[in-house]
Amino acid sequence: MTETVTISLDAMGGDNGAEIVIDGAALALERQPDSRFIFYGDEAIVAPLLDQNPKLKAVSTLEHTDVAVKMDDKPSQALRAGRWKSSMWRSIQAVRDNEADVCISAGNTGALMAMSKFCLRTMVGIERPAIAALWPTVRGQSIVLDVGATIGADTKQLVDFAVMGEAMARALFGVERPTVGLLNIGVEEVKGIEEVKDAGQILRESDLPIRYHGFVEGDDLGKGTVDVVVTEGFAGNIALKTAEGTARQIAEYLRMAMQRTFFAKIGYLFARDAFQTLREKMDPRKVNGGVFLGLNGIVIKSHGSTDAEGFASAIALGHKMAKNRLVAKIADDLSQYAHAVALDSVGEAKAGAA
Amino acid sequence: MTETVTISLDAMGGDNGAEIVIDGAALALERQPDSRFIFYGDEAIVAPLLDQNPKLKAVSTLEHTDVAVKMDDKPSQALRAGRWKSSMWRSIQAVRDNEADVCISAGNTGALMAMSKFCLRTMVGIERPAIAALWPTVRGQSIVLDVGATIGADTKQLVDFAVMGEAMARALFGVERPTVGLLNIGVEEVKGIEEVKDAGQILRESDLPIRYHGFVEGDDLGKGTVDVVVTEGFAGNIALKTAEGTARQIAEYLRMAMQRTFFAKIGYLFARDAFQTLREKMDPRKVNGGVFLGLNGIVIKSHGSTDAEGFASAIALGHKMAKNRLVAKIADDLSQYAHAVALDSVGEAKAGAA
Repeated sequence: MTETVTISLDAMGGDNGAEIVIDGAALALERQPDSRFIFYGDEAIVAPLLDQNPKLKAVSTLEHTDVAVKMDDKPSQALRAGRWKSSMWRSIQAVRDNEADVCISAGNTGALMAMSKFCLRTMVGIERPAIAALWPTVRGQSIVLDVGATIGADTKQLVDFAVMGEAMARALFGVERPTVGLLNIGVEEVKGIEEVKDAGQILRESDLPIRYHGFVEGDDLGKGTVDVVVTEGFAGNIALKTAEGTARQIAEYLRMAMQRTFFAKIGYLFARDAFQTLREKMDPRKVNGGVFLGLNGIVIKSHGSTDAEGFASAIALGHKMAKNRLVAKIADDLSQYAHAVALDSVGEAKAGAA
Repeated sequence: MTETVTISLDAMGGDNGAEIVIDGAALALERQPDSRFIFYGDEAIVAPLLDQNPKLKAVSTLEHTDVAVKMDDKPSQALRAGRWKSSMWRSIQAVRDNEADVCISAGNTGALMAMSKFCLRTMVGIERPAIAALWPTVRGQSIVLDVGATIGADTKQLVDFAVMGEAMARALFGVERPTVGLLNIGVEEVKGIEEVKDAGQILRESDLPIRYHGFVEGDDLGKGTVDVVVTEGFAGNIALKTAEGTARQIAEYLRMAMQRTFFAKIGYLFARDAFQTLREKMDPRKVNGGVFLGLNGIVIKSHGSTDAEGFASAIALGHKMAKNRLVAKIADDLSQYAHAVALDSVGEAKAGAA
């Protein structure tokens, strides 16, 4: 990697068009001046937007593409129509070809995952990529994965998620040995999935650079009990969306309560700064970006409906992970872990033979 | 059922002792004066508490029990040590023997479910009971099940949950045809569990007194998109605890924000009533009570750590469901549904033979 970080952007993804991608990149450049950008999209749309941002244009390249993946395309449709030539594919390919350090798209999740898998391939030893989300907690932030790449996960996949999650936590939070927990539903006899229990056993005994915490429950997510929460994608996605929904629900309660009486309205005026702080704390744009882990390259999915500020957050996330060599960290830990498991097997085989 | 509603109470369950059970019942009696109570517990503890509540005592019976199930007993331990004779078992048995219309315990969930299954047995046609939770929404309340009775659910079990949930919604909300949704993770090609899809197909074509809405996602829970949300227990439990955790997290953010500056504190004073309204909206005690559905009788699990107010909510829930003949409603719908399925099969067999 050079001193600068090169970011490939799918300028045609998302609900709100190329404008938020360009404006988001302009914001990101102010915050991470060592960034370089490659935009993939329709020249007729993107070029005029870049012309309005001369500073951004000076550090950017624009590659024209004819095809844009639609938000409601099925992954198979998107692959058929958009492989090799769509803005989404080309932005991923830039990572594969080492032209970019990280790719960001606000396009459709299923298509982006399908193309990423096809183009970048999974890392050696990884069967399934995962989508990792940043989760705001009362203590700061945690990483939760998988939040919806695939449904279900066997023991090995859960352990893989833990490896990828701890590497991301080290790259992002700068902790040496992140705490890792497995999402489960209580500790009673009849409870808990076998795969989760077995993964816990393996993590407890592993040489990974983690502190294995044990099981965590849904209410540990917001507490920030651990740095990395590992779960299969169905429960992880439902937890993520439930938390987003609950936050909106309470914001709505609060809005209604503060408008109900004259005194409440006065109180609101006095406490306006405090409410602003709260709003910032709860701002979903600040944690925008689902990180695809387990591929030979970093791809980040921005919320489709985000604005320039949210898109800039996704870019900042990608920038930081590229700087901190996320993929290399995951590869190192995977090989260390695979090595340890292989040694274990040798040990067991010997013990069995004795 | 007589005009009055008789409620059997496990006076020894919960983290906070018999006092909250007695005080909760006293509150409930004020609100539902047609209630009668049977307390099961240690006479030396419960009798003096009842003596302090003469109005309650006048409509109550106290049955002495020697054994109390502990909060950390495993279900198998609890069954071994507490069957026939613990306060928990006896309070369930009162429902089986038609001495009570509904049983409420704040004791350990696993033990209460194990004893309830053993004592009451599942209804004809139901393989697995479910735990249903009341979920506060911006539109009012919804019912979510299963929130943790068992992990996983096949197609038939999901449909059973829908039948039990719609009956509960009719008993509780008074709607004739509740809307029902299946919790899923998006509608894309690769997504969605087969069992959930198949259950959706069956519900769409059923003659049940429901309006089948389709799939819902985690963020639909707080919106109140449907009256009844059906899911298997692992994801349901994680969703429930994630929502509880998120609510606490935001309450903590709000508390910190309002204490941060002098103006915020003044604002808080002005808006105190509004904050009180918000606090009531978010009060978890108001939706206290996990309802065990699918058994030959109603058992309600109160949060172990609740107070008298929360316990009174669980009693109010049980009272309402007993009044509205919940178990009979479920039985009716199950037989109607089974009848419809049987007719269908006949139709198909005939079509096949033709």
